[in-house]
Amino acid sequence: MEVILHLRQIINEFILQLESRHEQEDLEQEEQQHRQNIRNQEAILIHLMCEVVNLLHSGASSSLELQLPRLSLVSKGGAGSGQQAQSSREPDQLSHQLSDSKTAFISCYLSNRGIDFSALYQSNLQDFIAYKGDKYHEDKNTLGFINFGLSENKHCIDLLTERLSQSDMNYIDDDLLQYPDWKGHAFLREEVARFLTYYCKAPDLLDPGNVVVLNSSLSVFLTLTMVLCDPGDAFLIPTPLYSGFTLTSHLYSKVELIHIHLQSKMDTQTFQLIMDKLEKALLEAKFKGEKVRGLVLCNPNNSLGNIDTLDSLKEYLEFAKRHNLHVIIDETYMLSEFRASIPFHSVLNMKSLPDPNRTHVIWGTSKSFGISGFCFGTLYTHNKEVVSAVGAFGFLHGIAGLTQHKLCRLLQDGEWIDNVYLPTNRSRMQVAHRYITNKLKTMKVRFLSRGSGLYIWVNLKEYLDPCTFEEEQLFYRRFLDNKLLLAPGKAYMCKEPGWFRLTFTDKPFRLKVAMQRFSEALTHKKQNWIEKQLENALVESVSSPSTRRSSSSSSSSSSPSSSLSFSSSSFVNVDTSHF
Amino acid sequence: MEVILHLRQIINEFILQLESRHEQEDLEQEEQQHRQNIRNQEAILIHLMCEVVNLLHSGASSSLELQLPRLSLVSKGGAGSGQQAQSSREPDQLSHQLSDSKTAFISCYLSNRGIDFSALYQSNLQDFIAYKGDKYHEDKNTLGFINFGLSENKHCIDLLTERLSQSDMNYIDDDLLQYPDWKGHAFLREEVARFLTYYCKAPDLLDPGNVVVLNSSLSVFLTLTMVLCDPGDAFLIPTPLYSGFTLTSHLYSKVELIHIHLQSKMDTQTFQLIMDKLEKALLEAKFKGEKVRGLVLCNPNNSLGNIDTLDSLKEYLEFAKRHNLHVIIDETYMLSEFRASIPFHSVLNMKSLPDPNRTHVIWGTSKSFGISGFCFGTLYTHNKEVVSAVGAFGFLHGIAGLTQHKLCRLLQDGEWIDNVYLPTNRSRMQVAHRYITNKLKTMKVRFLSRGSGLYIWVNLKEYLDPCTFEEEQLFYRRFLDNKLLLAPGKAYMCKEPGWFRLTFTDKPFRLKVAMQRFSEALTHKKQNWIEKQLENALVESVSSPSTRRSSSSSSSSSSPSSSLSFSSSSFVNVDTSHF
Repeated sequence: MEVILHLRQIINEFILQLESRHEQEDLEQEEQQHRQNIRNQEAILIHLMCEVVNLLHSGASSSLELQLPRLSLVSKGGAGSGQQAQSSREPDQLSHQLSDSKTAFISCYLSNRGIDFSALYQSNLQDFIAYKGDKYHEDKNTLGFINFGLSENKHCIDLLTERLSQSDMNYIDDDLLQYPDWKGHAFLREEVARFLTYYCKAPDLLDPGNVVVLNSSLSVFLTLTMVLCDPGDAFLIPTPLYSGFTLTSHLYSKVELIHIHLQSKMDTQTFQLIMDKLEKALLEAKFKGEKVRGLVLCNPNNSLGNIDTLDSLKEYLEFAKRHNLHVIIDETYMLSEFRASIPFHSVLNMKSLPDPNRTHVIWGTSKSFGISGFCFGTLYTHNKEVVSAVGAFGFLHGIAGLTQHKLCRLLQDGEWIDNVYLPTNRSRMQVAHRYITNKLKTMKVRFLSRGSGLYIWVNLKEYLDPCTFEEEQLFYRRFLDNKLLLAPGKAYMCKEPGWFRLTFTDKPFRLKVAMQRFSEALTHKKQNWIEKQLENALVESVSSPSTRRSSSSSSSSSSPSSSLSFSSSSFVNVDTSHF
Repeated sequence: MEVILHLRQIINEFILQLESRHEQEDLEQEEQQHRQNIRNQEAILIHLMCEVVNLLHSGASSSLELQLPRLSLVSKGGAGSGQQAQSSREPDQLSHQLSDSKTAFISCYLSNRGIDFSALYQSNLQDFIAYKGDKYHEDKNTLGFINFGLSENKHCIDLLTERLSQSDMNYIDDDLLQYPDWKGHAFLREEVARFLTYYCKAPDLLDPGNVVVLNSSLSVFLTLTMVLCDPGDAFLIPTPLYSGFTLTSHLYSKVELIHIHLQSKMDTQTFQLIMDKLEKALLEAKFKGEKVRGLVLCNPNNSLGNIDTLDSLKEYLEFAKRHNLHVIIDETYMLSEFRASIPFHSVLNMKSLPDPNRTHVIWGTSKSFGISGFCFGTLYTHNKEVVSAVGAFGFLHGIAGLTQHKLCRLLQDGEWIDNVYLPTNRSRMQVAHRYITNKLKTMKVRFLSRGSGLYIWVNLKEYLDPCTFEEEQLFYRRFLDNKLLLAPGKAYMCKEPGWFRLTFTDKPFRLKVAMQRFSEALTHKKQNWIEKQLENALVESVSSPSTRRSSSSSSSSSSPSSSLSFSSSSFVNVDTSHF
């Protein structure tokens, strides 16, 4: 390790030398050939050094986690410089996200963006990968991970398995085995239009020509941002937001997501997007010189489970129209209501959209049918230019023909959906939701849940001491130690530390074990806090008994148990009807 | 139409004014706020004008095909300027490709890149879409299109349908319906490693940890270029090349493909990549300041059907190693040999790769098994960093779990592959190839075919008068008028006009009709040429009989029939063993 650290120092110094040399070079534009030679020499030297370090690390790790100024390492040529300038404009939350984990490393093989993507993968998915390799099983692996961080609906896999096993699903013809129209097979687009007409209660029949089918809702989001924005353009988006949007913008489209932070305390309605916030956010962005192209909405909301009222939706769309903004509205969680106080309204339900050519709806079967493994997402937009441009990406985000057939058959079977799937799913969701919320209530844990979505937005602020994102991350890892994955609020760019998204749409036996683990983690955290307080008290009483009272009162720490006692009604707008 | 043309002129003038205003503005950096106001005003004006034009066009067309300086229209802000500089560095062949079709239009809705992508889609896929909507059918649609431009193997759909209909294919479990590991399900990656070990004759067992599974070979190529290159970096690539590489680089990765033009006349070996060309191309690129990150190879080659010898492959890889270049080698056409004089060798067959950490192999089932509709591609690389970085893209290029299961079962069934599929496919390919090449021989059409791939590289230079890409495109459209799609050489960046790629792996009844249509198009072309010559002769004899002889000899036109008479043996290296 010492050798590596020493090498790291040498490499750092060398890079500093290179950088200063580059600065000089910039002043002497005429010596191009000479400069090229120097660069080649540098590249070889850097390569050799990397090789030495790799050699030392060989076998142990595939990536070198050295905190080097890596952006200055590779992309020195004129070719990449434009992009590099642009990279520095990326949303700050992403660099923040990256800096949280051990992500910076040097590589002789990857490009700068390759290094970024790899780091992103490692930091975002390592726990998911760990879960995949060590899943809980009631008989075979009782000590495995339970994943309540992932938004998956596992309630009705039995129903789906049964339906998907029926003989009509296994149809094969020549067309299904060959290249489809890249926008999706016509039969599936027709079925999607019919399905959305019915379930979105559209006033008129929706047009299959307005449908594009891709291999996930996120692919649809990605391609929309690709065709509506140039790199560096911005979209307004309320937070908490779906973390996939952030990842996608970073990987491909380089679109800046300007956060409109919704909060629990400061708004008149908890975590509710209000018009003032929208107008203010747009004004501020314009003032900063941002090129705002649109607004991203998510209804029902991931991660809050909120449903927008029809009036709110109209307001948002009218606002967008006033400012010539596109609206990307993700309705992936449609049909996931289980006891909503506000009925869900798709924007496709409106008699007339304020700006139909700038309103683009995303939907998929991952959440509505609990089949995320189907990798299916769809776009509905009246704008034929957008249909055509998004369709251009089909050959890189396509779905197998046989899968398209299965999806078509599934969406076609209205009788099964209405009489079997939807009622069963709803009732199972209700039971699970009741079980979890009762448990939370017993534990005196506050939460937000408005009867839609696959999760509960849980408030664990009181367990953080101090209430910071660092503590949130530590608490997340504490749950992980207990073999329970939760989704911390920071992943959704929530502005307040201490929120977690807890998925409840799982089988009863897993719910039970998960809540035991959850409870244990909370108890453990409380005990730790008490021990810490006792320790502090002991140290204080030994060192300076006279100052005990004043130092204790000046501490920023608050007791988890004592803070539990403040009024809940004004703090989190919990829908108590679900208890 | 006149109104539109007038409007177009007004808009053009207005844009010129705007541009000159921008130039002035650039000189006055300090008045930022003022400038922003002007820009907003401009945006509104442009928007209004677009609306007027759209109104006039409404119903007729979704895109306005006005030749406007569109790049100067939208992206004026600082945010996009980096990317804009970079866009100007894009491969010139693409802008060339775009300028061929009516692609430039203004849009109030799309971004600059959105406009580009839409144009790309329109220009590249409109004929494919026409074909999809009007396919030939022996009973139901005898006047429909036959597609010999698409590289699909339709020979063994019956065998595949039968195999895929067996009960083992329809297995469903919970894991298959949920999010997989983004690199692909472990069971499939294991099977891919085993499959490649066997069919590539790898000296040691290949490691499933080196496999990533995505939703097409092209997605694998894309993600490789994303993680190995920064925007503006370059890869060397011999032409003719697979057109998907060009499209992909343009859509997402912004990697420059530096063409190494292989030619029929100038090389010692027809269309063969020789080391001198490689060295020279790299030197030239470096001299121009290009940051060359690697070399793309395709073996067996799409569109030539060439197979690289093991010695050639070693030379290429050694060359790459000497210059620290990555090698992306696309072996998608593996198992498509039907009568190859040179046996196929995968690079995975080598005892030791010269630079294993920079050698990345692509494979998929589209061509080897004739199931392009499965959307499956895979990466094999020893470089764990690349595996990890490419894996990061899985959530945007994923495959449905049920499809992964089917693929796994297919690859697993060695007995069926070895005893049923491969021998049947090979023998059917031989029969079809013999049929087509005999027809071509009868028509005195020259071609190149080396016993691998799904196509024949056909030389129709003699039918072009003059021999230009414009004439090639006209000839392509002539075939299209005859309801036959071929793939013109220009789509593959072939440097010589007059080559066409003709897919022969189709059912006998379609082969027959297609060759009738092909023959008719040729006859028609010949007749046209004769009529033209007669007309010219007539005009000349009437206007100035004395100059007839000299003007006729100075004409650059050459008779298709007369040019047919020159020696074929020195011109195209046809493997006559296939006749």
